[in-house]
Amino acid sequence: MTLTEMGARARVAANALALAGEEAKNAALLAISQALIEHGDEILAANREDIAHAQEAGLSSAMIERLTLSEARLAGIANAILKVRALPDPVGEVLEARTLYNGLQLEKRRVPMGVICVIYESRPNVTVDSAVLCLKAGSAAILRGGKETIRSNLALESVMRAALQSVSMNPDCVQLVHDTARETARELMGMRGAIDLLIPRGGAGLIRSVVENAKVPVIETGAGNCHIYVDAKANLEMAAAILQNAKMQRPSVCNAAETLLVHKDVAERFLPMAQRALGGCQLRGCERAAAILPGIALATEEDFATEYNDYILAVRVVDSLEEAIAHIARYTTHHSEAIVTDDAGAAETFMQRIDAAAVYHNASTRFTDGEEFGLGAEIGISTQKMHARGPMGLREICSYKYFVRGEGQVRG
Amino acid sequence: MTLTEMGARARVAANALALAGEEAKNAALLAISQALIEHGDEILAANREDIAHAQEAGLSSAMIERLTLSEARLAGIANAILKVRALPDPVGEVLEARTLYNGLQLEKRRVPMGVICVIYESRPNVTVDSAVLCLKAGSAAILRGGKETIRSNLALESVMRAALQSVSMNPDCVQLVHDTARETARELMGMRGAIDLLIPRGGAGLIRSVVENAKVPVIETGAGNCHIYVDAKANLEMAAAILQNAKMQRPSVCNAAETLLVHKDVAERFLPMAQRALGGCQLRGCERAAAILPGIALATEEDFATEYNDYILAVRVVDSLEEAIAHIARYTTHHSEAIVTDDAGAAETFMQRIDAAAVYHNASTRFTDGEEFGLGAEIGISTQKMHARGPMGLREICSYKYFVRGEGQVRG
Repeated sequence: MTLTEMGARARVAANALALAGEEAKNAALLAISQALIEHGDEILAANREDIAHAQEAGLSSAMIERLTLSEARLAGIANAILKVRALPDPVGEVLEARTLYNGLQLEKRRVPMGVICVIYESRPNVTVDSAVLCLKAGSAAILRGGKETIRSNLALESVMRAALQSVSMNPDCVQLVHDTARETARELMGMRGAIDLLIPRGGAGLIRSVVENAKVPVIETGAGNCHIYVDAKANLEMAAAILQNAKMQRPSVCNAAETLLVHKDVAERFLPMAQRALGGCQLRGCERAAAILPGIALATEEDFATEYNDYILAVRVVDSLEEAIAHIARYTTHHSEAIVTDDAGAAETFMQRIDAAAVYHNASTRFTDGEEFGLGAEIGISTQKMHARGPMGLREICSYKYFVRGEGQVRG
Repeated sequence: MTLTEMGARARVAANALALAGEEAKNAALLAISQALIEHGDEILAANREDIAHAQEAGLSSAMIERLTLSEARLAGIANAILKVRALPDPVGEVLEARTLYNGLQLEKRRVPMGVICVIYESRPNVTVDSAVLCLKAGSAAILRGGKETIRSNLALESVMRAALQSVSMNPDCVQLVHDTARETARELMGMRGAIDLLIPRGGAGLIRSVVENAKVPVIETGAGNCHIYVDAKANLEMAAAILQNAKMQRPSVCNAAETLLVHKDVAERFLPMAQRALGGCQLRGCERAAAILPGIALATEEDFATEYNDYILAVRVVDSLEEAIAHIARYTTHHSEAIVTDDAGAAETFMQRIDAAAVYHNASTRFTDGEEFGLGAEIGISTQKMHARGPMGLREICSYKYFVRGEGQVRG
């Protein structure tokens, strides 16, 4: 099947899905969740083949860990579907309604996006997550995963499509691109009219490639060079706890901290505390930080621009709140930025002026997450300012339209 | 000045403008409105030069009419600014606020987009409209108009920037690209990080070029191949009045009708009524329409796909509501589509299934407009599904961000 044919099938499926009620969509989600458990053996067998190929290809053990499915992980995926099922249907909600001066009834209602394409790498749970979030939001999904998990993805697609058919829903609501050649991703990026929204999920290289080449509407996700700024008036115990959480709890994710900025007035007291809190983490500091913490590596310009996703933290001593804001303005990826301070004015200035999806006062950046924010689930975290910002749940992957009802009104 | 320098200046101006209160922005708008009147002579003199060049270049009289400013038009532009000034400030509005399970205070607030670039053609009023809408929405504007009105635009820019300075606002809130070479538009489309949103306003060629080449986020605007479907159960008098309004009142605009679809059961009665209502309009019909209205031209496939923006209407007789929906699905530009019927079920089916920014029941498509919809003003009409759909007013050119306030919360 060509991608054009796939796009046409997705449109037909999306048109019907847009009219499907909550009950029908929930029945489909339940069927998919159950089918993943029922067909666990074949999915895990396919995944083992992927893993064998990955080992032959010499992938890192961290990478292989990310690709691996187990019975427990599959149960987790199936359970996550039930959570999406329990979320309110975003489609049809009236966002605004009013009667215009001429008697026209104007109603702005949330409607599905249509056809959503997700281009992603590695982890097979993304195949299911993306499919079910799109489904509940009333959109057909075209999924283009990476070659490392193609066998797992094919098995997941087959199980999901059969589950859709079992509840009389068009299986083309979920389609996987079977060809993982680079060209298929490029072709998808150009399918104007066929794809209403393209979401890349993966590393910086993938995101950049999509943003630079796509002709269809895109939501950029995931880059997170997040900062923790410890102000002159910070509660330093709290700051150390927040920093420890933001850097160490799960360094591989996009809402983990990558740079610590500390006000000069508290640097001498705080940096040794930070070092103790960050046991096992490599620090790379500016000269002033290195003078306080002898033996740490010196940070380069490059360090401040890097999203390590690892147990490494860049550290810089700043003279003022102003300098902290300027540093962040220069290096931010507009994801999540935090200030720790007991000075309410400084906190407000920081939060107003920092341009990021989420700005924090006295809390860890790790909270930027669909579930933590109460969206129930997320398909990614937007780092752009258009359409959706921060965690994208069901409502964030919908559009809206105006329903206008009259009695023959014409414009004067 | 290079475009990169211009982008850097815009960012500095945008950062300050984002923090400016409603009062400061309104003072700037008042100053601009007054300055346009005070400096009317120099603006009109510059416009006369543009017109002289346009005449030499042999532009059509319709085109020249669009380029021409007069004292009355300038007064209209100045007055429109006062209307924008009177609109509520969209910035800072709390869109959602709640306390999370862990005590974190989550607040989703509307914030400015940042730097908005508008690439447009011909009409000099767009220079002022775009600048003031961006300003009120807290964003700096980079304006790239067409060469036909470069002298008018330079005069308008100079007057607007002086007005900003007179109220101590950074004049870089409004910058015009002085070089109208095609390359400057292309360069703007690639300025990731510098431009947060790019809005093309103009003909289909411009829109296509921007959508295909831009690497920055874009909102597609303006293409309107709008349909009026006259159902079997339509009030035919009402249908004729709506059709007349939608086609004839102002055929050059994007919300004007371009195709009439009529149900076979009423075609024989309605088409002659339509022909009378559309005096001065050329009809191009399918064979069945031509059999009822002998002497009209035969419509080609191309006709149904064309946005005439002129006194021309394509006409097609359809067998059913289903066929009307299928025709529209094929040719729609997702702008505005209308059904005329007394059958509430048919109306609901049509409105649910047609994928357009605005769907109408018993009203003219001409109402798709920022002022008519109560947005106060518009910077364009979006025909895409991402971010904003239909008329874009102040709120539609803003973003949002999450403010999260804690007391030391870390993620478990």
